[in-house]
Amino acid sequence: MTEDLVRNNERVDDLQNGYYIIQDPGKFCFGMDAVLLTGFARIRKGERILDLGTGTGIIPILLSARTEGREFVGLEIQEECAKMADRSVRYNHLEDRVKIVCGDIREAADIFGAASFDVVTCNPPYMIGNHGLQNPDRPKAVARHEILCTLEDVVRQTARLLPDRGRFYMVHRPFRLAEIMNTLIRYQLEPKRMQLVHPFIDREPNMILIEAVKGGNSRIQVERPLVVYEKPGRYTRDILEIYKMV
Amino acid sequence: MTEDLVRNNERVDDLQNGYYIIQDPGKFCFGMDAVLLTGFARIRKGERILDLGTGTGIIPILLSARTEGREFVGLEIQEECAKMADRSVRYNHLEDRVKIVCGDIREAADIFGAASFDVVTCNPPYMIGNHGLQNPDRPKAVARHEILCTLEDVVRQTARLLPDRGRFYMVHRPFRLAEIMNTLIRYQLEPKRMQLVHPFIDREPNMILIEAVKGGNSRIQVERPLVVYEKPGRYTRDILEIYKMV
Repeated sequence: MTEDLVRNNERVDDLQNGYYIIQDPGKFCFGMDAVLLTGFARIRKGERILDLGTGTGIIPILLSARTEGREFVGLEIQEECAKMADRSVRYNHLEDRVKIVCGDIREAADIFGAASFDVVTCNPPYMIGNHGLQNPDRPKAVARHEILCTLEDVVRQTARLLPDRGRFYMVHRPFRLAEIMNTLIRYQLEPKRMQLVHPFIDREPNMILIEAVKGGNSRIQVERPLVVYEKPGRYTRDILEIYKMV
Repeated sequence: MTEDLVRNNERVDDLQNGYYIIQDPGKFCFGMDAVLLTGFARIRKGERILDLGTGTGIIPILLSARTEGREFVGLEIQEECAKMADRSVRYNHLEDRVKIVCGDIREAADIFGAASFDVVTCNPPYMIGNHGLQNPDRPKAVARHEILCTLEDVVRQTARLLPDRGRFYMVHRPFRLAEIMNTLIRYQLEPKRMQLVHPFIDREPNMILIEAVKGGNSRIQVERPLVVYEKPGRYTRDILEIYKMV
């Protein structure tokens, strides 16, 4: 009967941990970024977590599977996408712990209230502006380019959504590292932990994982590099462990 | 006759490239940090370079050996240290290209004038404050703790000493990464290139190398990790190449 939840253009991806995600291959599908963010985030028992721009719902669904957080809310602006994420929640019978809300990141603090979550997560669009892009696949464009919200929008709302000592987890691209640090600090979200993700050990990083604490002091822990491939086509043990954990 | 330049309490270290550094083992000796910074810095033909807090003079002496820069100036506040660095310059017969000046980093832009160098380098004290430290070895304490100048002092002076597009190269500790980025950006020194130095590939980094460009746009290149040891006691090829280059 859960089959009723899947539309014709969609497929169901097995997360290998007893959970499933409904995706539309013609639109934006979740990537390794989201999975690594759920491995990097530290969620404590009983906490409430908000995922900004949740897309397929992969982050709240994975976090509900691998942590003892109490409630996970995914905010998604695109209605079709939010509905699909909500069907994934029901497909996994997670309605008690995971909620999908359709709404705009730029209004998140108004929607949920100030200091309403212990933790905020986000896998935001990475690219600045839309470079005049007229992508007919709007869901993909919105997920990749800062069309509907910028890095500063995400940080500004997060700063309002978190109480003092609340934690923010984000995955992004290294080329924006300096801007990310600067923006977080301007909004009193102090960068406290960072990990760079390298496709191979001798390559430049292509992702950055970051933890910021609202009102934290100025001292960051830079972790050892997270390397994806041992050799072409073969994941490292670190990556296998993160995927096994899911 | 160059022997006359060396005092009884001092030793002469062979840099293995035809150059030598006079050091006092009872005081602060240069470390791998300074050497890696000279490998990271990109100096073009004919440029003028200022090293803030030059200590033994290792950075201007190494840079004069490995680049085609026209003039290298080392600024050092501790008179005895500045004199020893000056003797190293004469020991190497580098008086034409390397100058040591005794003076305060906090007055550097007044001493040399605004926009007076193409490049500024710095291996500053890493530790915040002096933690009530009463180190009888003042030269060591001054080199390690922000007693005589802070990170912000260094960045403020550098921003004045460089013209638009001028470059700043610094080595520091990763735990201050966020503060470094934020301070640089506040003074319009945009972080453009960064490399983390790890003692071993599976360890956290213990140094950060950073290039900032005055008035640059917001986009940073994070390089592949620089790993020091292949196994205990054995340097990686990357490190051997940096030392061979010197």
